[in-house]
Amino acid sequence: MKAVIYNGPRDVQVREVPDPRIERPTDVLVRITSTNICGSDLHMYEGRTDFEQGRILGHENLGEVVEVGPAVVRVRVGDRVCLPFNIGCGFCRNCEKGFTGACLTMVPGQAGAAFGFAGMGPFEGGQAQYLRVPFGDFNCLLLPEDAQEKEDEYVMLSDIFPTGWHATRLAQLTPGETIAIYGAGPVGLMAAYSAMIQGAQQVFVVDRHPDRLKLAEQLGATVVDDSKGDPVEQIMELTKGRGTDKGCECVGWQCHDHGGHEVPNLTMNNLVGTVRATGQIGVVGVFVPQDPKSQDKLMQHGQIAFDIGKMWMKGLRIGTGQANVKAYNRELRDLIHVGRAKPSFLVSHRLPLEGAPEAYKHFDERTDGWTKVILKPD
Amino acid sequence: MKAVIYNGPRDVQVREVPDPRIERPTDVLVRITSTNICGSDLHMYEGRTDFEQGRILGHENLGEVVEVGPAVVRVRVGDRVCLPFNIGCGFCRNCEKGFTGACLTMVPGQAGAAFGFAGMGPFEGGQAQYLRVPFGDFNCLLLPEDAQEKEDEYVMLSDIFPTGWHATRLAQLTPGETIAIYGAGPVGLMAAYSAMIQGAQQVFVVDRHPDRLKLAEQLGATVVDDSKGDPVEQIMELTKGRGTDKGCECVGWQCHDHGGHEVPNLTMNNLVGTVRATGQIGVVGVFVPQDPKSQDKLMQHGQIAFDIGKMWMKGLRIGTGQANVKAYNRELRDLIHVGRAKPSFLVSHRLPLEGAPEAYKHFDERTDGWTKVILKPD
Amino acid sequence: MKAVIYNGPRDVQVREVPDPRIERPTDVLVRITSTNICGSDLHMYEGRTDFEQGRILGHENLGEVVEVGPAVVRVRVGDRVCLPFNIGCGFCRNCEKGFTGACLTMVPGQAGAAFGFAGMGPFEGGQAQYLRVPFGDFNCLLLPEDAQEKEDEYVMLSDIFPTGWHATRLAQLTPGETIAIYGAGPVGLMAAYSAMIQGAQQVFVVDRHPDRLKLAEQLGATVVDDSKGDPVEQIMELTKGRGTDKGCECVGWQCHDHGGHEVPNLTMNNLVGTVRATGQIGVVGVFVPQDPKSQDKLMQHGQIAFDIGKMWMKGLRIGTGQANVKAYNRELRDLIHVGRAKPSFLVSHRLPLEGAPEAYKHFDERTDGWTKVILKPD
Amino acid sequence: MKAVIYNGPRDVQVREVPDPRIERPTDVLVRITSTNICGSDLHMYEGRTDFEQGRILGHENLGEVVEVGPAVVRVRVGDRVCLPFNIGCGFCRNCEKGFTGACLTMVPGQAGAAFGFAGMGPFEGGQAQYLRVPFGDFNCLLLPEDAQEKEDEYVMLSDIFPTGWHATRLAQLTPGETIAIYGAGPVGLMAAYSAMIQGAQQVFVVDRHPDRLKLAEQLGATVVDDSKGDPVEQIMELTKGRGTDKGCECVGWQCHDHGGHEVPNLTMNNLVGTVRATGQIGVVGVFVPQDPKSQDKLMQHGQIAFDIGKMWMKGLRIGTGQANVKAYNRELRDLIHVGRAKPSFLVSHRLPLEGAPEAYKHFDERTDGWTKVILKPD
Repeated sequence: MKAVIYNGPRDVQVREVPDPRIERPTDVLVRITSTNICGSDLHMYEGRTDFEQGRILGHENLGEVVEVGPAVVRVRVGDRVCLPFNIGCGFCRNCEKGFTGACLTMVPGQAGAAFGFAGMGPFEGGQAQYLRVPFGDFNCLLLPEDAQEKEDEYVMLSDIFPTGWHATRLAQLTPGETIAIYGAGPVGLMAAYSAMIQGAQQVFVVDRHPDRLKLAEQLGATVVDDSKGDPVEQIMELTKGRGTDKGCECVGWQCHDHGGHEVPNLTMNNLVGTVRATGQIGVVGVFVPQDPKSQDKLMQHGQIAFDIGKMWMKGLRIGTGQANVKAYNRELRDLIHVGRAKPSFLVSHRLPLEGAPEAYKHFDERTDGWTKVILKPD
Repeated sequence: MKAVIYNGPRDVQVREVPDPRIERPTDVLVRITSTNICGSDLHMYEGRTDFEQGRILGHENLGEVVEVGPAVVRVRVGDRVCLPFNIGCGFCRNCEKGFTGACLTMVPGQAGAAFGFAGMGPFEGGQAQYLRVPFGDFNCLLLPEDAQEKEDEYVMLSDIFPTGWHATRLAQLTPGETIAIYGAGPVGLMAAYSAMIQGAQQVFVVDRHPDRLKLAEQLGATVVDDSKGDPVEQIMELTKGRGTDKGCECVGWQCHDHGGHEVPNLTMNNLVGTVRATGQIGVVGVFVPQDPKSQDKLMQHGQIAFDIGKMWMKGLRIGTGQANVKAYNRELRDLIHVGRAKPSFLVSHRLPLEGAPEAYKHFDERTDGWTKVILKPD
Repeated sequence: MKAVIYNGPRDVQVREVPDPRIERPTDVLVRITSTNICGSDLHMYEGRTDFEQGRILGHENLGEVVEVGPAVVRVRVGDRVCLPFNIGCGFCRNCEKGFTGACLTMVPGQAGAAFGFAGMGPFEGGQAQYLRVPFGDFNCLLLPEDAQEKEDEYVMLSDIFPTGWHATRLAQLTPGETIAIYGAGPVGLMAAYSAMIQGAQQVFVVDRHPDRLKLAEQLGATVVDDSKGDPVEQIMELTKGRGTDKGCECVGWQCHDHGGHEVPNLTMNNLVGTVRATGQIGVVGVFVPQDPKSQDKLMQHGQIAFDIGKMWMKGLRIGTGQANVKAYNRELRDLIHVGRAKPSFLVSHRLPLEGAPEAYKHFDERTDGWTKVILKPD
Repeated sequence: MKAVIYNGPRDVQVREVPDPRIERPTDVLVRITSTNICGSDLHMYEGRTDFEQGRILGHENLGEVVEVGPAVVRVRVGDRVCLPFNIGCGFCRNCEKGFTGACLTMVPGQAGAAFGFAGMGPFEGGQAQYLRVPFGDFNCLLLPEDAQEKEDEYVMLSDIFPTGWHATRLAQLTPGETIAIYGAGPVGLMAAYSAMIQGAQQVFVVDRHPDRLKLAEQLGATVVDDSKGDPVEQIMELTKGRGTDKGCECVGWQCHDHGGHEVPNLTMNNLVGTVRATGQIGVVGVFVPQDPKSQDKLMQHGQIAFDIGKMWMKGLRIGTGQANVKAYNRELRDLIHVGRAKPSFLVSHRLPLEGAPEAYKHFDERTDGWTKVILKPD
């Protein structure tokens, strides 16, 4: 089959590789019809991880079931399914509690596994014609009869929509509250969209890219351009000095200041400044345990200079980490099905698999207008 | 009346001062019969805060109501009451949600107020013969008929017992879980005690002072002596590599390493290492927004070098801040009343008000055996 | 002043009565500018309660503060305020936990108090020119600068909007779920509206009155006309046999079957049939502890023949009771302020105080088009 | 193998039957070493259900894994395991949310499945030498190295201990609260024990059998003998008229009054009377959707005359249904392992499988001293 192969820093190629096959009785084989490029694919693309050359990328996958193992009872050949980026077993302590992003079974000695991801086990990615899905009955989200018609909506359930949603749940947003979202990339926009669906009073979105801020505005958010002044001060003024009830970090350790330097503690400390006493912050932007190539000395060891004193005086709470996709994907699927959620507004490009090298290049360079790419292997 | 006056760094005196009086119709006047010295009094005692000379210390207070303002309807003269260290109004947005430690009314423009505390408003402390209590109906906890008999138990409801309890609630401990408590001072011991009452499976307590570890052991905790090796490694071994489900920080920014140096990020990063993926950490040890006298450069600005990368990969959650005493003091009072909680095991000394200078000195120097002092102004 | 007086079954009159005045230092006096007639006023109007002749009706009140007692510190003369129908003290055990609808202080020996309500204490109603508000700092909801412009929205915060919202919170609705609302009177419509704001997937509304069903449809709900067949069967068919995730009872004990007979267990048992296993039901429709005039023998003693066996097998949960208005009114006020909620769509008539007799008559007779009346005493 | 067979009303026999075998790749085969008789077995024993003649009873099972299907990856031959009475798939909507007692997969068209239980699917019971366990990786609870030494403790994890625990969780008991448990049979005693472990302030246990009340007293509960007067009045007096914060129903529809008549609504209405306004009630006593043999007309249709008016005025909440055993059994196992829980205090008899007929007879007749029987098939 054809697949998008990581060939070294800033080099991906579409190559012929052996087809995956059923390896365990609980496996399911899926013919991929939509597979997104994600912002976190860029960490691997840029060579800032230990992702091995020759592996297949892609963790935002949707397709049609073409074969099931003998132990599979729920999923059937012909079903249209969306796959969560994290892979769970369904019976370990963490999966059972709903923490499917921290499965203890898939990678022995580690919490969490994913398709085509550095440090997340040997599982191949889905930017390819076919994908092997372990524990198919547990991991496949079944799609309803409008699966093909709304495929560009449903594929967002693999990662980006649940991840944005997770940001707001980590912040424990309740209806009527205000929330500040730092970062208007795909995840930040999905967090803003999620907050609107949940009945937020007012959603502030902080970024500096005009195309992103425009999308945020179209969602009904109040945009804060941080190239025009300190975002904390701007939000304080907009909230009459109160700050927001809640906040979300949707940037991660590679956040930049106005001068274009990586300042890893920038958004976290801005959030501590933005959120009012008793508030709560959800952090879905990625922070890594080490980054030897970082210009920031602390970040080389996975640390930031964090405003813990201010945080403690305010009595803030912080939740972090990858989305447990399965905690949200059924309900979000149903919102899409009835037409109450349409996350595909993000999508800028739909390309064949062969378009991957070009798409990675533009997405990595943040070429204007390349907000989200879906690859169509068919 | 007589009161314990702050006279400058490491200098407290018992002096005659004017009696407090009813200033507002909602005030209550209490004759203090028990008032503890708290570990956080030492921050003021040592001169590391901007607490003004001449002010009265003391925020752990219990006594008898001797006068009530004309708007007071619940509390009556003769009632025995315990006062939460934090002062709330009962009708601001935060008080109403139960965040009485972040009252927006008592100190305009600030969240939170307390008796006799730096940066917490102009309210005098209770290490004195009398105390004025604002919003008496809201702030007084009424004590039952055994108030005097169990006075040394009930006075713990003013701060230390609810604060230890809060540590476990911020960590969202549930029955059957394991928890690691860093710090076996009065707060850490109360956190361990709270965890036992709540049905924790196993409570690990990390410290190095033998008298404290002995008290922890008597509570049924598993003690970890961090002078004998890295506490994270010790707990990992004791939990077969799993780590604990939850953790509590009960030390604060002045934590010391083995060599006696202040290492402000020591316990926080140890906790990130100790708690297992999906876990949660409660932070009641004090962190301040700035400490110009700190030897640690980051801490001068209220920052620590924090292991956010490791935290994020584990998907941890953190809750911080002062206890909202009123959120817990009724239920804890009732547990004391029926004999299911006896927090006075902490108390090492009961002294008259005049004993305050000596008590502060020994408590500050951590003289062996001075774990907790109650002053008795009578 | 002028006030709407209960003069016996189906007889209200607008009469001159003495002005209320500040009685306690914590009181506030409000000049009423908007005051609604509520469905529960009809229980008193019809003479099915022990409401005393000569008392003033009205518990959905909004106005301008004209005098404050000497202990009041937050509310000021000139403030525009909305008053929750339930009156709380702010410092009893229930108020502190947020159960302001079950205040233990206002009526000794009873949980709960309200303005102008049978069995809820001696407090006069607000269908009058002036109203005395006890514990003004606690009970007054301050309105922002658009108070007068959006007065017809804000007055809904006194009862009907929070009560509809409460129905969905008792059912613990989460975004993406389906919910069935029995009853499309003002409360049911507000419950449906609340569910939409909170991101429900699909909201089913069961009723038989065309004008009400039309309003429900305009909210985006799926209407179920129970005059055209068993509503449980209709919803089962619409949900492919699954039933709904959650349900709300917004009718109460006076529910009628198709033939117009009171069948007090009708909606409760329909809900048990409608909601799927593991689901949850919120009951805000009023059930009374006795109704000697009921044709139903069980209901005379406040009982219904309840399908507990079916409920138990499904593992359902049920929450009941009056809304704790203060638990929701700040956030709902803010949603109105920013334009994300407009509950006044309910209002059919705005009348001077003198219009009360006519309004009660039509509302009681369910005259077509009389969905909600605001009296304007000015 | 030998097994306990249901042979008709009040007739069980130990007979030779074919051994179970692995039927699906996810199955596990367990050699049973301990299997309890449960109070709910008596419903079948007495012939009040449609349990088929010839089927094997037994849903409280523990044993050693002797064979695993090819898709099983976690459980291994030789593992000691305890089996939850309810059988789940691990991947349906309900199992994923933790409602493993309402699995949608095991019995098509129904929520919930169990071993050897009327109306809970075709799965054989474990009062036998061997048991087939579907979805072994999901359903088996692995036991630690002291599995055999503490076997009589661990076998309680199959049903009775989690069911008692569930009663307190449905009531949302929090530490420091009071709770009333109606019924001191095995489930009620486990509910009382659970409440004590969770830090309840005071636990009231209502029953009339002296042996049961004695066990309750030994747990630290306050016993209420309802043969000596109305239990609601007794508890009201003991709580100074306040009532309890929470309540548990641990009797079910076959509750009897003093005269020995079945009065199906007795405990439910007593609980509504006992629990204070804002309180909550957990119902684990079984209520069935119909009982044609009941002397109570309403109960023939699964109904009771329920005090909904009083409930509504108090604003009570009620949770019902079977325990989702897997929601609790890991944590309870760990409490047993470290010695903080010892539920085997209940056990009165340990008998070989052959003792089943005698044991059923005595247990059904409530012979004094027969509180709980473990059958040992070895």
